[in-house]
Amino acid sequence: MVRHGESTANALNRYTGWSDVDLTKMGEQQAHQAAKQLSGMEIEHVHTSVLKRAIMTAYLIQDDLNINYVPITKTWRLNERHYGALRGQNKDKTRKEYGVEQVRLWRRSYYTMPPKLSKPDANIGPYKYLDPKVMPLSESLFQAYNRIIPYYVDSIAPRLLDGKNQLIVAHGSTIRALIKYLERISDKDIDGVEVANGKPLIYELDSKLEIIESNRK
Amino acid sequence: MVRHGESTANALNRYTGWSDVDLTKMGEQQAHQAAKQLSGMEIEHVHTSVLKRAIMTAYLIQDDLNINYVPITKTWRLNERHYGALRGQNKDKTRKEYGVEQVRLWRRSYYTMPPKLSKPDANIGPYKYLDPKVMPLSESLFQAYNRIIPYYVDSIAPRLLDGKNQLIVAHGSTIRALIKYLERISDKDIDGVEVANGKPLIYELDSKLEIIESNRK
Repeated sequence: MVRHGESTANALNRYTGWSDVDLTKMGEQQAHQAAKQLSGMEIEHVHTSVLKRAIMTAYLIQDDLNINYVPITKTWRLNERHYGALRGQNKDKTRKEYGVEQVRLWRRSYYTMPPKLSKPDANIGPYKYLDPKVMPLSESLFQAYNRIIPYYVDSIAPRLLDGKNQLIVAHGSTIRALIKYLERISDKDIDGVEVANGKPLIYELDSKLEIIESNRK
Repeated sequence: MVRHGESTANALNRYTGWSDVDLTKMGEQQAHQAAKQLSGMEIEHVHTSVLKRAIMTAYLIQDDLNINYVPITKTWRLNERHYGALRGQNKDKTRKEYGVEQVRLWRRSYYTMPPKLSKPDANIGPYKYLDPKVMPLSESLFQAYNRIIPYYVDSIAPRLLDGKNQLIVAHGSTIRALIKYLERISDKDIDGVEVANGKPLIYELDSKLEIIESNRK
């Protein structure tokens, strides 16, 4: 699992969520670094979100590993958590406006939802064929988890059970949800889990998809 | 349908086929030009080969059109015709060695196969899960047609019938085969059809997938 490289919004310390922002030059370098750490692994399928900071990170990694031909699936289910009305806002500014503790809860608590959008975004672009009923106004990590894990179960786990290495290139909250699931971390303890840009988390799983080894500290 | 931009092998006037060569700088520019000509079209699925000159052309076009999220399928069925033992050879050199007429037949006649490889390439990389019985030693356009059209029928036509624009980013012979099928060109007349790098061929089809209009001269 690789979190995308630094985005233009990361660089500006802004909440991003479903906003579709580009990688920075540093973000591209982080993707190349991630590729180096993955070299020698035989990757059989790539999974990413419909957000281009993740897609471009995946492309850069595939190109560096000379595996452009490996299938890639892009799904809204691997999108970053939706930050609701916080989207586009500066994180320090929200701390001043709402207080450090409130912002900590929005960012790290499992069940707290950020303030909602007044109405959902239009079902266009990557969401054109998505049931409008699931377009979020904002998401807690719990809500994001509940849309992320079905994709893991249906589209990643079967391929792992077939013995094939899978590369997931996604987002901070997406990967936190997957770590929670894989490591059975409690709702309370997940708030301590951080995921760095462009540092591959590598899990070796047994035939029951239980963890044999991982490089996560 | 877009033929990939100029490849390093095109630039050296070499037969390429299934060799996996990069785009040149000019090839990248041709991809950007192709994107310009496609702007404003709503593309709902991208189809390409497992060869990176086509994959990279598709990525550049998707990025320019800001539709990175659109699904892409990579398939060996859209690969360039396999040039057998001519692969890697300079086209002028083969003309001197075998004669202009023989080379014309290899390049343009529908049924003529280039000299075969002595044994097929190993089933590795993108061909790891391909039935070894179909790994070619060389292909006539007729043989290539017979593996290309099933993909069109099974994976592209249903989406067109559903009213969704499809982008095919592939190779000279792949696109000649698709033109032959779409326009019902005879085995004899297909030898006059040329496909330029990075110039989109746009077909508007009716509800029976018959051509209403196209920009092919």
